[in-house]
Amino acid sequence: MTSAKASKAPDASRRSERSRRAIFDAALALVTEAGYAKTTVEGIAARAGVGKQTIYRWWPSKAAVLLDAYLDLAAQANDALGGAAHGEEGASGIPDTGDLAADLRYVLRATVDELGDPKYDGPTRALAAEGLVSAEFAAQMAEKLVEPQLTYYLRRLEAAREDGDIAPDTDLRIAAELLTAPIAQRWQYRTVPLTHAYADALVTHVLRGLAPRP
Amino acid sequence: MTSAKASKAPDASRRSERSRRAIFDAALALVTEAGYAKTTVEGIAARAGVGKQTIYRWWPSKAAVLLDAYLDLAAQANDALGGAAHGEEGASGIPDTGDLAADLRYVLRATVDELGDPKYDGPTRALAAEGLVSAEFAAQMAEKLVEPQLTYYLRRLEAAREDGDIAPDTDLRIAAELLTAPIAQRWQYRTVPLTHAYADALVTHVLRGLAPRP
Repeated sequence: MTSAKASKAPDASRRSERSRRAIFDAALALVTEAGYAKTTVEGIAARAGVGKQTIYRWWPSKAAVLLDAYLDLAAQANDALGGAAHGEEGASGIPDTGDLAADLRYVLRATVDELGDPKYDGPTRALAAEGLVSAEFAAQMAEKLVEPQLTYYLRRLEAAREDGDIAPDTDLRIAAELLTAPIAQRWQYRTVPLTHAYADALVTHVLRGLAPRP
Repeated sequence: MTSAKASKAPDASRRSERSRRAIFDAALALVTEAGYAKTTVEGIAARAGVGKQTIYRWWPSKAAVLLDAYLDLAAQANDALGGAAHGEEGASGIPDTGDLAADLRYVLRATVDELGDPKYDGPTRALAAEGLVSAEFAAQMAEKLVEPQLTYYLRRLEAAREDGDIAPDTDLRIAAELLTAPIAQRWQYRTVPLTHAYADALVTHVLRGLAPRP
């Protein structure tokens, strides 16, 4: 790197961060308004006020930029939940206070709040819809989003099993999905309102099934 | 009705049934191949070899014909499951042999098979994707498909509660969703293979939570 370039680096970095933010905002707004199929790299670039080549310098495809924009949004939600307070990168967002039921109620209430927030609702629906019809996009969503989120639950449930709070023969992945899938289904078909009381009742019903048996 | 019309009725009825079948097949094929947004009444009519007006005589919109085509397909699956053997219209497809675990394993294994069958997989994905992004279509899916299916589980679980097989304070709707939502989630993101062994394990985990408590 030449010294001329080095002296420009802080500005360039600020500009990059500003562009990245504008690209993410444009990508999420467009996919929410127009859906995945009609969102294009050209459209994102135009709305973000950057050149198309700026996007292609950082991301190989529309799918990649949309996923990164969504992961950034999800990370903000996780930070808001207190995940960042743990001080680790990719912190779980699931606290371990030693009270499994309380910890799960906390995180599922937050999930209910997030799914009810238009900021998350639109992009989540658009990307989940694309995942339903595109196996390739679903695989990327699973790898970067679904499996990591499931891992947070698996870790908390594993700690609970070690503490003797859940039965030793529990299939932890099934247990994690019992906690997350029913909320997603109510959200998907908007069949009944998602409330904190529902989140609490779900935790109660699932934990009854996981409890150690005599 | 004139006698001339009456004498034509059997032929007309056969022609109608043939047209209806061709329209359903065309609608399901198109939505699977092109997705909901790109499927049109014109396209369905052309593929089915009928006039556009034939479709509009029976259905008010693309959404209506697609939903009816899908409900017809779902009814075939239900018949295959033995629902028709009960002899009632809209029979549940969930047997009541008195053995709740066995009955649920039977129906969830059948669900796993159905979701793995390309005949159902394509249209199910296309319609669920549209339900995710269109609140109006989701409401129609909920009314005509999701809630009726849930009702079958609710009836079987209510019988089980009366038989003392599940705890009296169980929220039956939560219980029904614990049985159906996790399978749908694995199918949606294709994260792990859907197998009969998984269906069995899911039933075991859920029923542990519903069992009467001392």
